[in-house]
Amino acid sequence: MNFEQWMRTVLERVEQALERYLPPTSTAPARLHEAMRYAVLGGGKRVRPLLCHAAGELTGARAESLEAAAAALEMVHVYSLVHDDMPCMDDDALRRGKPTVHVQYDEAMALLVGDALQSQAFVALTEGAALAPVQQAALTRELALAIGSIGMAGGQAIDLASVGHKLTREQLETMHRMKTGALLRASVRMGALAGETPDANTLSALDAYAAAVGLAFQVVDDILDATSDSATLGKTAGKDAKDGKPTYVSIIGLDASRALAAQLRSDAHNALAPFGARAQRLAELADLVVNRVS
Amino acid sequence: MNFEQWMRTVLERVEQALERYLPPTSTAPARLHEAMRYAVLGGGKRVRPLLCHAAGELTGARAESLEAAAAALEMVHVYSLVHDDMPCMDDDALRRGKPTVHVQYDEAMALLVGDALQSQAFVALTEGAALAPVQQAALTRELALAIGSIGMAGGQAIDLASVGHKLTREQLETMHRMKTGALLRASVRMGALAGETPDANTLSALDAYAAAVGLAFQVVDDILDATSDSATLGKTAGKDAKDGKPTYVSIIGLDASRALAAQLRSDAHNALAPFGARAQRLAELADLVVNRVS
Repeated sequence: MNFEQWMRTVLERVEQALERYLPPTSTAPARLHEAMRYAVLGGGKRVRPLLCHAAGELTGARAESLEAAAAALEMVHVYSLVHDDMPCMDDDALRRGKPTVHVQYDEAMALLVGDALQSQAFVALTEGAALAPVQQAALTRELALAIGSIGMAGGQAIDLASVGHKLTREQLETMHRMKTGALLRASVRMGALAGETPDANTLSALDAYAAAVGLAFQVVDDILDATSDSATLGKTAGKDAKDGKPTYVSIIGLDASRALAAQLRSDAHNALAPFGARAQRLAELADLVVNRVS
Repeated sequence: MNFEQWMRTVLERVEQALERYLPPTSTAPARLHEAMRYAVLGGGKRVRPLLCHAAGELTGARAESLEAAAAALEMVHVYSLVHDDMPCMDDDALRRGKPTVHVQYDEAMALLVGDALQSQAFVALTEGAALAPVQQAALTRELALAIGSIGMAGGQAIDLASVGHKLTREQLETMHRMKTGALLRASVRMGALAGETPDANTLSALDAYAAAVGLAFQVVDDILDATSDSATLGKTAGKDAKDGKPTYVSIIGLDASRALAAQLRSDAHNALAPFGARAQRLAELADLVVNRVS
């Protein structure tokens, strides 16, 4: 199977899993469930589910286990987008090529959609026998730490506090490591933990890979925000500069940002060396993250 | 030990556990952690932690296990208060006798405090060896289901949609069963599950108890909202009537509401009959919920 075929197969499984793990609109409250599905389904690159599945191949994780972990990761990612887009945060009207939840519904609904998606992620992790109880506990902990105040939510707080301030490159990196890096790292770790318990060496190599990919993801995001258009991105382009947010492009410039992305891609590949061909999908995903155009 | 002494002992343990399970302000981002602690510490009746501890006595749960469960329950409860008080929801300025988080800080911080407290609850449940992994998984599932779209968040969505509408008593009950009842039920169940695995009869008797106490809690809330003042309540009194929200008092009247609260208290006691003296604390808590003045 080539990478394209692998991606297509995984993405199809991910959509089906999300469809299955989200409550149906026939369950009350119908409007909340409709809005949760509006936010999650039919859009998004599904980078976190892909990383989770690729890492799971290293530890022989069953497809069913990876589907639960991947659905939880994507629901949490979407919750963060829905809340970040609200007027009191980034105030954005466009996401994944559609009106944001607070525009399509209203602010209260956006708040509740995000809140309920976070909970639903933990419901997915603990549903049925997709994961053994000890894995359910381990993945719950990975996810909760990655998205809480020392992870994603904390990074978001630093991001908001940084508007209009000059950050050093180190401060920018710390912010991104929490805001997006922590969940990308959790995607890789949760995929690995969904299979045969990985040893410490495996986890630390995967951490090094995830750190490089996570940072590359953000550097490329900043490059695209500065060089692409809203139609291609499916979200508002040029927004960081307009909001006075520090980015890699504003701090080190466009050329150095591109060189950094290439370096991080190479770091990611190097981190995978111990795994040989078994890490092929992870290597290909690092390429995808760096070469993407949206 | 009498009930007063038991309460004092448990409340002290709960405060210490919350202090321990909340990240310190010395950890970055300091302001987020300060705001999380502002929201959680030094206030609140801690009804959910008390129910959790009382239920845990039935199944011989260790204090350490109950502290983790109780801290998670209270963090989730406070997250819901912080989000409910935001301008796009109930828009309230006073909570537990202090300015609400979005007033004391700002809206973005209130959003992040709520988001991060929800995650921190799952961090607490899976921390160290307070709970065995299989309990961590079971309690995670109980909590996630209780607070998600078919529980607390769903009840909140129905509550918002009901403003200005006439609800039947059955519709009002459904709303409260989700909005507050689900988490109170989870408090009792999580306490029991933190000890020796309870049998189905125990759990179903506890469910009946929790359903009665949960509804009684809401009926008394409605009575207090209509008859007490903001200084006593520590939150804005008379708000439901002003906001056009349906309440037990507006639907069945004050006298019938009082009679209903008394009936539910008696239902709660009856549900505990199989446990005899072992359920003394749960029985006393049912009395506390009905007799409270704030």
